[in-house]
Amino acid sequence: MTNKWNMLVDQMRQGSIRALSKLITMVESREPGWTDAMKVIFKDTGKARMIGITGPPGSGKSTLTDQITRLFVKRGMSVGIIAIDPSSPFSSGALLGDRLRMKSTVGLENVFIRSMATRGAMGGLSQATQDVAKILDAFGKDIVIIETVGAGQDEIDVVKATDLVVVICVPGQGDAIQAIKAGIMEIADIFVVNKADREGADHVVLDIKNMLDIRDSGYKPSVPVLKTAAISGEGIEDLMDKILEMLNSRQRDKTQQEKHLKEEILVLMEREIACLVRARWSRDGKLDAAVKEVLERNNDPYSVVQSMIAPLKSKIECDTE
Amino acid sequence: MTNKWNMLVDQMRQGSIRALSKLITMVESREPGWTDAMKVIFKDTGKARMIGITGPPGSGKSTLTDQITRLFVKRGMSVGIIAIDPSSPFSSGALLGDRLRMKSTVGLENVFIRSMATRGAMGGLSQATQDVAKILDAFGKDIVIIETVGAGQDEIDVVKATDLVVVICVPGQGDAIQAIKAGIMEIADIFVVNKADREGADHVVLDIKNMLDIRDSGYKPSVPVLKTAAISGEGIEDLMDKILEMLNSRQRDKTQQEKHLKEEILVLMEREIACLVRARWSRDGKLDAAVKEVLERNNDPYSVVQSMIAPLKSKIECDTE
Repeated sequence: MTNKWNMLVDQMRQGSIRALSKLITMVESREPGWTDAMKVIFKDTGKARMIGITGPPGSGKSTLTDQITRLFVKRGMSVGIIAIDPSSPFSSGALLGDRLRMKSTVGLENVFIRSMATRGAMGGLSQATQDVAKILDAFGKDIVIIETVGAGQDEIDVVKATDLVVVICVPGQGDAIQAIKAGIMEIADIFVVNKADREGADHVVLDIKNMLDIRDSGYKPSVPVLKTAAISGEGIEDLMDKILEMLNSRQRDKTQQEKHLKEEILVLMEREIACLVRARWSRDGKLDAAVKEVLERNNDPYSVVQSMIAPLKSKIECDTE
Repeated sequence: MTNKWNMLVDQMRQGSIRALSKLITMVESREPGWTDAMKVIFKDTGKARMIGITGPPGSGKSTLTDQITRLFVKRGMSVGIIAIDPSSPFSSGALLGDRLRMKSTVGLENVFIRSMATRGAMGGLSQATQDVAKILDAFGKDIVIIETVGAGQDEIDVVKATDLVVVICVPGQGDAIQAIKAGIMEIADIFVVNKADREGADHVVLDIKNMLDIRDSGYKPSVPVLKTAAISGEGIEDLMDKILEMLNSRQRDKTQQEKHLKEEILVLMEREIACLVRARWSRDGKLDAAVKEVLERNNDPYSVVQSMIAPLKSKIECDTE
């Protein structure tokens, strides 16, 4: 590891917020040496519990995250928040600033908030989020909350990799069917019907419970459905208790952890291969020539790929260590 | 190619809808021999024009697609529709059936509709969609419409690869800012404000135009913003004319085509190599052992990946043919 990375990792370990932010940025943008840094950082990970909070735009995710975080801090825990923002094509960054989103926790000593854009993350959103979560874990955060809209497979993957998933619904947003459509129904450990002071809240609770009944048919422990009104703070303490209870009772499911880790390694590997492949075949114009041939229908993409990977194939298959 | 594939491709070429459906299913699920089949099918591609239609849930995408398709057919063109459905965790397939979505065109002789689930596509949604689009092209469709919610990078990639992108907005859905947030603003060739009989339609049109002004600042040909009411059919003819006008005037942008094809080949190649490496490491329990080591913090994911790709690395970097 270079001196720069070494210094930053050391400072981060000593609690420097500045070094923490810098490290995250450098790892996110895959600056040379990031893997070596992550190797060192990884040694300090494995303590934080990860919570995924997801729900449609306007469901009050940020306010709820904000409220929960305050309660965690009140109970003596330190919290890291990763807020995944839909990207703007204009700013090519996150659309909503951290400060706009989490009013009451910004500035609290034990809270660190990081926004991430959904697009353009080097190595993919899922990997980038996991990198940041690891760094926050190594930094000593007890709880890492990942807050996301949960639209698209990418974001669902991100949330899936946490220890506990809270899915938020609200009355009047096309019912719980939206949650099904988004594919987040099956990953929920807790359902929250937020804005429960609105008309129709009980109806949404019933809808969700019915759907859970259809799905579960007894094979899975029942998923709690809670009501909150995040702005007034109603129901937040109950939600908090439920979260802690569930985190404690499950502890870490080892099979689950192995599964996530395996997936992470495979995705990381695929990205690395993709980088190698792109670098290699962009180098000498071979790919460009092949593309032209295909466009003229003198060749096809499938044959091009086969001839490109032929030499690798034998190499991979013969490699018995 | 085996007899089975040969027979299906032949029958498809002769116009068998049954063979077409079967072929699509087999290629989608990557049944052995799919690449050889696609090599043959690819020779017949390159004639169809691809249109992407995207917009938030409830914006009337399906109705609009349905209406446009009817007009295409009326003008003597044959149409293939690929409807990308959010997946249901229960059915592990597409949530809404074709018949539910496209009322008036289902059963029309020149229309073929295929639903695709957003999740679980072997080789990724983007690749699967492109495979199906190619098969429809080879089958002889003049127009292939890809209809999708456009949430998540995957779906945006799918739409980006078409010849023309129609983005639908509706009044009262949180304004055009949602389009920006979803990252689809910049890929629109035509904006449609649907449900234009609703209050606020003109306001949405203005919002979009303002945003286009900010973005374009003169460097790009102006993007048309049209109003429709898909249910009554208002404005559909105008939209249709605009689509055909733009498709004709641009013809095929060769640089764009080369770019898409290059990307497709690279993605295909990455997937193939990743499959090889995965298979190699799953074979003798090497990966499982590595995962266990990492869980015990005796190793880290980054070192595991480095050793996985080491043999590739030397091969790729040395292979100068």
